[in-house]
Amino acid sequence: MAQTEHTDFPLVATIDLGSNSFHMVLARVDHGEIRILERLGEKVQLGAGLDEQYNLSEEAMQRGVECLRRFAQLINGLPTGAVRIVATNTLRVARNRDVFINRVKDVLGHRVDVISGREEARLIYLGVAHTLADDAGKRLVVDIGGGSTEFIIGERFESVLRESLHFGCVSYGQQFFAEGRISAAGYKQAYTAARLELMRIEQSVQRVGWQEAVGASGTIRTIAQCLRGGGQSNGEVHREGLQWLKRKVLKTNHVDKLSMPGLKADRRPILPAGLAILEALFDALHVQSMDLSEGALREGVLYELFGRREHEDVRERTLSALAERSHVDAEQAARVEHKALSLLSKVAEPWGLTDGKHADLLSWAARVHEIGMDIAHSQYHKHGAYLIEHADLPGFSNQEQQAMALLVRGHRRNLPGEERMAELGEEGPPLRRLCMLLRLAILYHHIRGFQEMPELQAEARKTQLTLRFPPGWLKENPLTKADFAQESQYWAKIGYTLTVR
Amino acid sequence: MAQTEHTDFPLVATIDLGSNSFHMVLARVDHGEIRILERLGEKVQLGAGLDEQYNLSEEAMQRGVECLRRFAQLINGLPTGAVRIVATNTLRVARNRDVFINRVKDVLGHRVDVISGREEARLIYLGVAHTLADDAGKRLVVDIGGGSTEFIIGERFESVLRESLHFGCVSYGQQFFAEGRISAAGYKQAYTAARLELMRIEQSVQRVGWQEAVGASGTIRTIAQCLRGGGQSNGEVHREGLQWLKRKVLKTNHVDKLSMPGLKADRRPILPAGLAILEALFDALHVQSMDLSEGALREGVLYELFGRREHEDVRERTLSALAERSHVDAEQAARVEHKALSLLSKVAEPWGLTDGKHADLLSWAARVHEIGMDIAHSQYHKHGAYLIEHADLPGFSNQEQQAMALLVRGHRRNLPGEERMAELGEEGPPLRRLCMLLRLAILYHHIRGFQEMPELQAEARKTQLTLRFPPGWLKENPLTKADFAQESQYWAKIGYTLTVR
Repeated sequence: MAQTEHTDFPLVATIDLGSNSFHMVLARVDHGEIRILERLGEKVQLGAGLDEQYNLSEEAMQRGVECLRRFAQLINGLPTGAVRIVATNTLRVARNRDVFINRVKDVLGHRVDVISGREEARLIYLGVAHTLADDAGKRLVVDIGGGSTEFIIGERFESVLRESLHFGCVSYGQQFFAEGRISAAGYKQAYTAARLELMRIEQSVQRVGWQEAVGASGTIRTIAQCLRGGGQSNGEVHREGLQWLKRKVLKTNHVDKLSMPGLKADRRPILPAGLAILEALFDALHVQSMDLSEGALREGVLYELFGRREHEDVRERTLSALAERSHVDAEQAARVEHKALSLLSKVAEPWGLTDGKHADLLSWAARVHEIGMDIAHSQYHKHGAYLIEHADLPGFSNQEQQAMALLVRGHRRNLPGEERMAELGEEGPPLRRLCMLLRLAILYHHIRGFQEMPELQAEARKTQLTLRFPPGWLKENPLTKADFAQESQYWAKIGYTLTVR
Repeated sequence: MAQTEHTDFPLVATIDLGSNSFHMVLARVDHGEIRILERLGEKVQLGAGLDEQYNLSEEAMQRGVECLRRFAQLINGLPTGAVRIVATNTLRVARNRDVFINRVKDVLGHRVDVISGREEARLIYLGVAHTLADDAGKRLVVDIGGGSTEFIIGERFESVLRESLHFGCVSYGQQFFAEGRISAAGYKQAYTAARLELMRIEQSVQRVGWQEAVGASGTIRTIAQCLRGGGQSNGEVHREGLQWLKRKVLKTNHVDKLSMPGLKADRRPILPAGLAILEALFDALHVQSMDLSEGALREGVLYELFGRREHEDVRERTLSALAERSHVDAEQAARVEHKALSLLSKVAEPWGLTDGKHADLLSWAARVHEIGMDIAHSQYHKHGAYLIEHADLPGFSNQEQQAMALLVRGHRRNLPGEERMAELGEEGPPLRRLCMLLRLAILYHHIRGFQEMPELQAEARKTQLTLRFPPGWLKENPLTKADFAQESQYWAKIGYTLTVR
């Protein structure tokens, strides 16, 4: 695809004509980042309109066109090149697809690209990769669609295996749970059919290998929400949860009777087939547990439309944009970051902070610790933590955002206390120590570069840390002295001794 | 004072050498707004160092100099003109003040202005006015300091009466609660002494008149915090609360034994004298209840330093800066504001929204309803409400910020429900109706100006509203039609009927 010069377009939109739902994302670029303005999604169930000869029914086309007429009102003014429309499985297979595609073009005024299953897989991975931590390690990404299911193995922004299988929750729903009827026999047939299809990719998935499984579709999200609603998980999908949910589903005989916390009414029809497919997939690919990603095909198209490439450092861009948007004093942030990392190098061994992740976290938190001031000076550490916890931060995992928020929240006033530590489990102690290092770096640079700062020696033991300034220096610099004296009181509250000489 | 061209100075600082505490504020200008970077405050109790001949003791000067050496480290690099230091009562009266002032100049490298009581009053009012709603109506502002107490009556940014009386919580503390001893007799004497002094201004205060009383000092804030800590108030100070606190204070015989929720240890010494002064002031000036302001002398100096003048529209500036900082689509905001006000004009009578405040609120909320998108698109209405609730928004009262936050929080998804309504009391129904108007304006302009929009008729009765588009228009514009159809479902949930034709 030709790269689009996005600066020409204040707004861009991508539309994804899926077999189950149509989705639109409207976005703009701000400080080099894609900012979502609006998301629309409608359950059109286009795939349900395919007959046995793969002809799309007039009713299904009509549902699609009506949905798109609503979308159209929102993108009326956008020029060619600012809108990309992709269509997936149902339009890949429909014999009369040209009829529908021409109608779409009439309604939207833009071309429709019917993309291949592998291309769909590639774009899904791109959309998902932007929402995940930019870590090394192979991921298996799965997207159960209405008419096809995509499997990708990738690392960072590069997908190495891209597969698309010809089944989905709408097509299997019609086939094995006709008119919404649920039966154990139907479930078993759906499961078996999926296992048979999956045999085509089992070996290659195993050969490439993966460390982490990620699910990325409304179907998998619905299942995760049912598990969470039933108190079975904290958001991820695991084997026991699937069995639990299967028992619940098979207790009823019609999708209209499915009712449980976390299950939205319009998601009921896809649940039985989606569940059977997911169970088959867990078994065939030996998945134990699967995390969720909010990214999807339409986000992948969006990143591609903006010319984002795989090898840029997405975290770097994300943090810079956040700091810039929040009017952070960049020089101060750099000073604090530098000092924090220098302190870390001195205490990493005795304090058990030798993992590269520790240095990353400390460095990220240092760069954004003052962003909350953009809201208000009063309690700005809390505002900063709120921003980091809730902002879209491509390249960072949810856990990383939470850890960063903890460091920012704790960078002044009280350190994280026992209650918070109990919640964090074994993650707690290293995070708190990183927080302590960040605080020392901030106090060291309290005066914001108005003055040359001296060498600082640091020596740590278990719950002790000794800092040494050059002889006589503290006496000459009473703010620094008072700062560290007060800091040692905060440390004492959590059982640490800070000695400053 | 000559106006300073603030663009020359990335940072400015103001220091206030008070009789009880020294304070420093470090700030910078961002998008035309003053953004506080740092606040430092230390309880120096300079006023306690005055002997009977009004000579400042060496110890007190030493405490002051030590504090300022800490402050100095932070403003080392700032040029003349970027720092303003003001001194108040203790240095107004100290005979040997030049000795201290020269030492201050040596430490800080900047001139010290000893300002008169009336000038102090004027600057306090300026600092307070920036934190209050920019409403018409006279306010009585009171600042109980360590050595003097200021009284100002003003309207908007103009002070019309400025008085300074020669008593404060440090001087009265020494006189009537010597060495921290508390007695009913001492309290009575302090109260009587204050009443005698207050006689000098009672008549002029009464002549000018006022509608609202505002307290603006650490002393009054401490008292308010004790009342809140004891469950006696929601943050304001009232007569019954003062009596309650007086009974508690007189139960002990030394300030060191004062212990109650909300009272910080370093605030104990000033409580008995501060309370006696405040009680006297309530009685003398017939105050029933007093709100708190965070603004103070140092903020007033800061606003003056930046050349802020009284007649600018501070709310206008605040909202523009917030919208700009948050990268709001300004054209869309203007469209929504215009439409919301036009709808208001059509339903104001039947819906009881004829107060000018209603139009103001609606207009403000429209201008900032999308700011939360700057954090993340998901749940952006909640992020926007968080920002509005927590941001420093000069010119807006706390209640106004909360009302605006409510409108922004409710501008999509569910309307404020019964629980929220119960909390809001009689404020609730009009706020909710404003919220409904805002939503209609947003839906009307969902398409962000891509298309000419037609005339819209609106007619309201109690819990009903009918909107009329030109015949046939809705049929041609299915997104708008779907939007309003969904909206009427949200209204139905709270017992309102929205009819759209």
